[in-house]
Amino acid sequence: MADVSDKAATVREAVARGHIAISADALAHVRSGRTTKGDPLETARLAGIMAAKQTASLIPLCHPLPLSHADVQLTPVKNGYDIEARVRTTAATGVEMEALTAVSVAALTIYDMVKAVDKRMVIGRIRLMKKTGGRSGDWTR
Amino acid sequence: MADVSDKAATVREAVARGHIAISADALAHVRSGRTTKGDPLETARLAGIMAAKQTASLIPLCHPLPLSHADVQLTPVKNGYDIEARVRTTAATGVEMEALTAVSVAALTIYDMVKAVDKRMVIGRIRLMKKTGGRSGDWTR
Amino acid sequence: MADVSDKAATVREAVARGHIAISADALAHVRSGRTTKGDPLETARLAGIMAAKQTASLIPLCHPLPLSHADVQLTPVKNGYDIEARVRTTAATGVEMEALTAVSVAALTIYDMVKAVDKRMVIGRIRLMKKTGGRSGDWTR
Amino acid sequence: MADVSDKAATVREAVARGHIAISADALAHVRSGRTTKGDPLETARLAGIMAAKQTASLIPLCHPLPLSHADVQLTPVKNGYDIEARVRTTAATGVEMEALTAVSVAALTIYDMVKAVDKRMVIGRIRLMKKTGGRSGDWTR
Amino acid sequence: MADVSDKAATVREAVARGHIAISADALAHVRSGRTTKGDPLETARLAGIMAAKQTASLIPLCHPLPLSHADVQLTPVKNGYDIEARVRTTAATGVEMEALTAVSVAALTIYDMVKAVDKRMVIGRIRLMKKTGGRSGDWTR
Amino acid sequence: MADVSDKAATVREAVARGHIAISADALAHVRSGRTTKGDPLETARLAGIMAAKQTASLIPLCHPLPLSHADVQLTPVKNGYDIEARVRTTAATGVEMEALTAVSVAALTIYDMVKAVDKRMVIGRIRLMKKTGGRSGDWTR
Repeated sequence: MADVSDKAATVREAVARGHIAISADALAHVRSGRTTKGDPLETARLAGIMAAKQTASLIPLCHPLPLSHADVQLTPVKNGYDIEARVRTTAATGVEMEALTAVSVAALTIYDMVKAVDKRMVIGRIRLMKKTGGRSGDWTR
Repeated sequence: MADVSDKAATVREAVARGHIAISADALAHVRSGRTTKGDPLETARLAGIMAAKQTASLIPLCHPLPLSHADVQLTPVKNGYDIEARVRTTAATGVEMEALTAVSVAALTIYDMVKAVDKRMVIGRIRLMKKTGGRSGDWTR
Repeated sequence: MADVSDKAATVREAVARGHIAISADALAHVRSGRTTKGDPLETARLAGIMAAKQTASLIPLCHPLPLSHADVQLTPVKNGYDIEARVRTTAATGVEMEALTAVSVAALTIYDMVKAVDKRMVIGRIRLMKKTGGRSGDWTR
Repeated sequence: MADVSDKAATVREAVARGHIAISADALAHVRSGRTTKGDPLETARLAGIMAAKQTASLIPLCHPLPLSHADVQLTPVKNGYDIEARVRTTAATGVEMEALTAVSVAALTIYDMVKAVDKRMVIGRIRLMKKTGGRSGDWTR
Repeated sequence: MADVSDKAATVREAVARGHIAISADALAHVRSGRTTKGDPLETARLAGIMAAKQTASLIPLCHPLPLSHADVQLTPVKNGYDIEARVRTTAATGVEMEALTAVSVAALTIYDMVKAVDKRMVIGRIRLMKKTGGRSGDWTR
Repeated sequence: MADVSDKAATVREAVARGHIAISADALAHVRSGRTTKGDPLETARLAGIMAAKQTASLIPLCHPLPLSHADVQLTPVKNGYDIEARVRTTAATGVEMEALTAVSVAALTIYDMVKAVDKRMVIGRIRLMKKTGGRSGDWTR
C-alpha cells in the first residue's frame, strides 16, 4: 500500500523477515515467472500485504489498527527466497505482528503455488528485524 | 474441531509441523501458563484451528473447502515449542495449506503473547509431514 | 436464503429462538418502521442470515459448512420481539450453532438500531428449539 | 487485548453482561476444565474478544473502529456462568455493540463446547451495564 | 451508518454512482417490494453499506481505515435503478474505493435478488462523482 | 484456482464479463506493467479470484458454497480492458454471483491502482454471459 504521510503523527514501523527453501527444480519453475497458477512472487507479495491487513482477525489478542503502509519484497537467494515485510502505522500500537504475518502468508502462498512440483519446501527464519517509533524506544535485532 | 466421520466419503488428511525458538527467560514465562494476556499455548492452539478455517481467504489461489477436523498440538522442546497441525476434509482437494496455515498462525500467536518479554523469537521449520487420501497417492516426508 | 433442494442428500435442520425486550417508547419507534438508521426489523433479519454464514469464523471449534437455507423471522410480542432462525444444510454436521448465531446477531442488530432511544433493552431466552436430520436422531425442546 | 494507554485521547468504555444457564450435569463437565473440545471457558473468553473486533462486519450499521482494549470474564454462578465484557476505544463512537457482541459470542461458544452433553442451555440477560466517555455523558444501568 | 461528527478533524468524503438495467417485467417485480427473497432495494442498501466497510479486504492495495459515515441510495429510473453511495472518514486517506465498492455490491445484490426473473440485467456506469477534503484538493466529475 | 475435477459430480459453471474505460494516458501507464503500486492487471486478476471466494459474505442472500475453479482474464481493448470471470462448483447452486463479483472486484482493483493518474474511469457492462450445469438448464446471453 502506498504511503500515507501524516506529518503531525508519530509513525511506528516494523520490519520482519523470513525464508522459504525450495528445491533447485522447483526454483527453476518459479523463476520462469509462471506456474500453472500464475506468478508465485507477485501473488505472494499481494497475499502478504492483504494478510497484514487481516492480522487482528487472525491473532486473537492483537489490536485492530489502521495501517499507513505495507509492503513485501521477495529476493532470490541460493536455495529459495528471502521475504521481507515493512509495515507502518500512525496508531498507538506496534505493528510487529502485521509484519510477521505478512512474511508468513507470503511464504505460505509461494508454497501453495509451487507445491505441485515440490512438497518438501521449508518455511523458516521468520523473525522481527526492527521496530521503531514506539513508546518503548527503537529496537533492532 | 471434533471429527465428523462420514464413512461413505474418502477422507483426505494433511499433517504439518513447525517450531518457535524462545529464550530461556521467556520460556519460563510461557510455562507458568500465564502471560498478562492469558495462556499462550491454549490461545495458539485455538488461533491455529481458526486460521485453518480461513486459509482460502488468506492464500489467493487456495480452494475454499469444508473441513471435517482440525487440531493443533504444541509440545515443549528444549528451546521452545514444536507445533503440529492435523487437518481433514471429505472434499475433493488436499488440505496441506490448511495444516501449514494452522501451524504458522499458532506460532505467530505465541510470538504475540510472549513478545513483551522476548522480541528475538524465531519461527521456523514449517513443513508438510504427511498427506493422505488424495488422488495422487499418499506422501510422507 | 432460498432453499436448495437436493433430494439425494439428507437434510439437517435446526431452529433456534430468542427475544429482545424493548421499552414501550422504543417499541413505538421500531413499529413506525423507521429509525434514523432504516428499518430495524428488515436489517435484523438480514444481519441474522449473514451471521449464520459467518458462524464458523466466530465460534472457534465450529465446523465450516455450506448452508442450503437460512431465514430469520421477527414476531412482535407484548414487550419486544420474538426472533426465530431456521437453518438447513446437506453437510454432515448439525447447524444448531448457525441458528443460535443468527438469532443472537439479529437481536444485537435491533439493539444497535434502537439504542439511541433505549439503552436498557435486554436480549434473552436464546435457545435451541429443534434439531432434525442428524445421526443422533431428532431432538425437540 | 492489552491496554493501549493514549493519554491525549478521550477513552470511551462500555461494559456489557450476559448469562448462560447450564444443567448441573453439564456444569460438572465444564468445571472439570476439559470437554473433548478443550477448555470451554478459555475458548469462550478468546472467542468473545475476537468477536468484539468483528462487530462492524456483523452489525450492518455499526461503525468500524479500532479498539484499545477488550476483555471477557466468566464467573461461575449457581446455574451456569455470568459473562462480562469490557471494551475501550479512543475513537469517536461508543463501543456498546462491541461489548454486547463479545458477551453474545462468548456465550455461544460455551454452548458449542457443551452441547454434546446439554442441548437445553439458555443464553440470556444480555444487556449494557455502563457506558462512559462519550459526548452524551456517562450512563449506568 | 450515522454520522460521527468530529469537529476537530478534517472530513474526507467521496460520492460514487452506478446503474443497473432491469427488464420491465423484472422491474415490476422489484417495485412490488417483495421478491421471494425479501425487499431487493433495502437489502441492496444494507449490502452496499456493509461492503464499504470490507473494502480494504477486497481491494489488495487499499488502506484499511475507519469510516465515519456510509450510505447508499437507490433511485428508480426508466429502465432500472440509479445507485449512489456517499462515504466519509476522518482518516488520512480518501474513500473513493469505499464509495465505488458500496455501489458495486449494492448493484450485485439487486442482481442476486432479481435473477430468478431476469438474468439479462446489466450493471454499469460505476464511477466517482466527487471527492472532497483530501490534501490534493476537491475533485468533481 | 486450479481445476478440481470430480467426475462423479455435476459441474455448474458461470461466465460473466465487464469492462473498465480508461483514458489514453492512464492506459499507457497500465500497459507499462507498473504503477507505483505494482502490476494492475495481475493484481486485479488475483483480487477477482479472491472476491469470488468471498461472494457469500458480501451478497446477503447468496449461498456459501465451495468453488472448484475460479479465474479472471483481462483483455486489452481500445479504450480500456474487458474482464471475464469463469467460476465452477460441484455444489447444488449456481455460481453467477461469484462470477459477477469476481468481475466487479477485478474492475474496482484496476480503478484503485490507476486512480492516481485517472479518476474518470468508468466500470460498466457487468453481465452474465453463460450459465451451465444447473437444474434449470443451460442459459446463454
